[in-house]
Amino acid sequence: MAIKDKTVVIVGAGIAGLKAASKLYEEGVKSCILLEARDRIGGRLHTVQGYQGRKYDLGGGWHHDTLINRLFAEEAKLASQDGKPRFVFDDDSPIYIDSERGHMENDGYLRLEVILDEFIKFIYLIFNQNLGVPDCTYKEMIHKYIYEKREFLTDEQIRYLPQLARFVELWHGVDWEMLSGRDSVYDSQGRNAFVLHYESVINRIAQSFPQDWLQVSTPVRSIKRSKGVVVTTDRDEYHCDYVVVTIPQSVLELSLYPDDQPGKITFEPPLNTRIQEAFGKTHFGSLGKVIFEFEKCTWSDATTRVVILSHSSDQLAQQVRNAGDWQTFWQAANHPKKNIEPWDHPLFFLNLPRSTGVPSLVVLMQSPLTEYIETLPSKQLVFEFFEPILNKFMAAMGCSQPVINAVDKTDVKPQNSDSPVLEGMIVTNWSSDPYSRGAYTVCFPDDDAIDMVTAMMNGQDSRIRFAGEHTILDGAGCAYGAWESGIREAEYIRERL
Amino acid sequence: MAIKDKTVVIVGAGIAGLKAASKLYEEGVKSCILLEARDRIGGRLHTVQGYQGRKYDLGGGWHHDTLINRLFAEEAKLASQDGKPRFVFDDDSPIYIDSERGHMENDGYLRLEVILDEFIKFIYLIFNQNLGVPDCTYKEMIHKYIYEKREFLTDEQIRYLPQLARFVELWHGVDWEMLSGRDSVYDSQGRNAFVLHYESVINRIAQSFPQDWLQVSTPVRSIKRSKGVVVTTDRDEYHCDYVVVTIPQSVLELSLYPDDQPGKITFEPPLNTRIQEAFGKTHFGSLGKVIFEFEKCTWSDATTRVVILSHSSDQLAQQVRNAGDWQTFWQAANHPKKNIEPWDHPLFFLNLPRSTGVPSLVVLMQSPLTEYIETLPSKQLVFEFFEPILNKFMAAMGCSQPVINAVDKTDVKPQNSDSPVLEGMIVTNWSSDPYSRGAYTVCFPDDDAIDMVTAMMNGQDSRIRFAGEHTILDGAGCAYGAWESGIREAEYIRERL
Repeated sequence: MAIKDKTVVIVGAGIAGLKAASKLYEEGVKSCILLEARDRIGGRLHTVQGYQGRKYDLGGGWHHDTLINRLFAEEAKLASQDGKPRFVFDDDSPIYIDSERGHMENDGYLRLEVILDEFIKFIYLIFNQNLGVPDCTYKEMIHKYIYEKREFLTDEQIRYLPQLARFVELWHGVDWEMLSGRDSVYDSQGRNAFVLHYESVINRIAQSFPQDWLQVSTPVRSIKRSKGVVVTTDRDEYHCDYVVVTIPQSVLELSLYPDDQPGKITFEPPLNTRIQEAFGKTHFGSLGKVIFEFEKCTWSDATTRVVILSHSSDQLAQQVRNAGDWQTFWQAANHPKKNIEPWDHPLFFLNLPRSTGVPSLVVLMQSPLTEYIETLPSKQLVFEFFEPILNKFMAAMGCSQPVINAVDKTDVKPQNSDSPVLEGMIVTNWSSDPYSRGAYTVCFPDDDAIDMVTAMMNGQDSRIRFAGEHTILDGAGCAYGAWESGIREAEYIRERL
Repeated sequence: MAIKDKTVVIVGAGIAGLKAASKLYEEGVKSCILLEARDRIGGRLHTVQGYQGRKYDLGGGWHHDTLINRLFAEEAKLASQDGKPRFVFDDDSPIYIDSERGHMENDGYLRLEVILDEFIKFIYLIFNQNLGVPDCTYKEMIHKYIYEKREFLTDEQIRYLPQLARFVELWHGVDWEMLSGRDSVYDSQGRNAFVLHYESVINRIAQSFPQDWLQVSTPVRSIKRSKGVVVTTDRDEYHCDYVVVTIPQSVLELSLYPDDQPGKITFEPPLNTRIQEAFGKTHFGSLGKVIFEFEKCTWSDATTRVVILSHSSDQLAQQVRNAGDWQTFWQAANHPKKNIEPWDHPLFFLNLPRSTGVPSLVVLMQSPLTEYIETLPSKQLVFEFFEPILNKFMAAMGCSQPVINAVDKTDVKPQNSDSPVLEGMIVTNWSSDPYSRGAYTVCFPDDDAIDMVTAMMNGQDSRIRFAGEHTILDGAGCAYGAWESGIREAEYIRERL
């Protein structure tokens, strides 16, 4: 084992670690190493190529909050200088597709989006007008709303609002049985810009410091405090002044337990009490994607965003109107399912023909569906799971032909020129990947995201620091938040050197 | 002049004064008089009858913020007890009608509502992320947004967003040349319920205290402090312990000046410094209404809310893209008009066939259009002003026939059974009425609504108190806010008696 001296060791070459290295170099730090466990950089920002070289981001895919996003501002400035498109604004009013009704026209009679706005305000008021209100699941919160407001809602509003409101699952990456009601609401600071693609952002940052600073396929095994800090990999022992740990908190959590799992880093002394306690109020979502690549677009490209509603209950309005009290209603309405079937979970379809012209559909899914789909043993099984949903999507989007699965098949001949022919499929593996273990931090009932962010911002101590998507308040869970946290830690170290 | 002793004198029998009287009676106060200058109660809540006995509210027409509105909760409880409909939820997604394009489909290509959401967030961030940002007009604020974000907006978005964003004028009651940019954004706490009609609310409250407490057609001339308070009308002098002044602030403002105008109350000593200073940062909107009453509905009843956009500029995109700096652009784009013509101002059409089944249209308008329309010398001139807009509305709403004006005419025979035949027209007079002098308090640039609310909540002194729509923070400008302020002042007095 070789002993090497460095001023700074950065653990993890995601956007937080890369930006920290870039900033340290800019500030004149001469001796730094960036250790990445995977054989690639970017972490949960990961661009891949599919059918005919089409590119997709399997992890983060947008610049969020573009009114305040400084990473976006930097990219926008570059775009205006060289004219190269780096993003496209793709927000629009979503279309909702129901298994029975098909395209749900949000007409004057249903007014579901008006009710949805009120429901979001309802949650906000419950937790902001009073202190100490107990948290509950998002599912319970939705049912509380329709129970309390049943006199002011039509039967159809009661039936469909819960399904419409579940779209937030595709932001957080967990379903309504797990998601915190209190933490379900999120606010956007401006439009979202779909990134073309994050690899160009990642590569640009990675090229802004000496290339010998970067070492991939090098998992860190332990981080020990002495006078400075000693960081150990399988081959080397780095003696350094500062460490910036940027690994996902889902992986960092392994450090709390004695078991030796892949990705685990042993801290000596152990992670401090504040961090340990914060992990007691922290969970992780699994925002997964399945990408369906078609030969050509045979359906409507009028809109980007399509939400597939899960099955609604035609009993719900009767249950809520007949129930004598809340408990009776909640017991009648709350039947968690054990197995996972199509139409159990809302899905978010990104209709790429509209935004980028690529004839592919990106489907976002949430835990526990993500884990289920990501571990299916074959693409054929993934296709079979989504087949009825894809066909409903096609019908609602003006394509009357069923999807023909031509993936890995050479003898498929569609009968009809309007048939959507599936040529490729990509399934993420974030939930089983030992270096991500899910998508990102999310709140279950009674969790407190602020505690963890505060614990991370304070660091393990003055020399072992943290950066990454949930180590910062503004932009938590977003690429730009991770990027800002990398700047923050580089500045912290620079001030002390 | 008779001298009469009372415990409490309430000035103004709007909902604030009526509720204060009701609450004082409930609390056991025995001696109270409610002096109303007009020959009717209700103030700026005023239900009238039109063609065939159809009822309309000329002033306030909704229960706003129904998630937190306690007056609404009371009405809803009564409705569930006796089954009598007292309101209807009428929010829906508005339709936008442009003079050239007709019905503006908010399709995936324009995405105007997405841009509008971002613009509202843009204003919020400017004033909440930094302190001391100078205020400007709403017009300037809109132009700042399209200037700063021009790279991220299409030519059509730049052209139409300003017109779409002007819908807030119909909330505040002033146009974008006057409205404060900082204060333009408002937040709703739940859906709006259209009231059927406010006269039933007003009458219910007015019947909850002794009828001899109420004296209409009795303007108050002066309010003088001695040991108690002396309130003078043309006939009587009331010696009392407490006064609650509930007149509009636009009328109260007259007390600052020596001129003797209708509605003016002389205060001795004069209104305190805090109130005087607050008037320096207070203005008043004129939210007026014109109601068009048709024989029957010959157009679409699919939606309640229709916003008529004012003329947009096809030069704007070019101006903002070519301008070298903000000042150049603003000078090129800002051309305030002197005279008032149709299509100069956005209008809000309430399509009553959808919400109440009544074949009438309620048009909301803002200052200075309200003053212009309210002082036109004949209904024929009002009709002529709105005729092109009404015909565009009809065409966009699926009725191909022009409007036939049969108001006050007996010989009108429509050629076509689908012709919309106008049988009645009602025009408000809030701006010229000496007891309202406009609609309600609104912020011009650099105004501060909080100062006035605070000054009013503190009262003139411990015995001369204030209630009404802008004497309270939650519900300011709304009927329920005025109602809550009446309760507040009754409780204040009860505690001290």
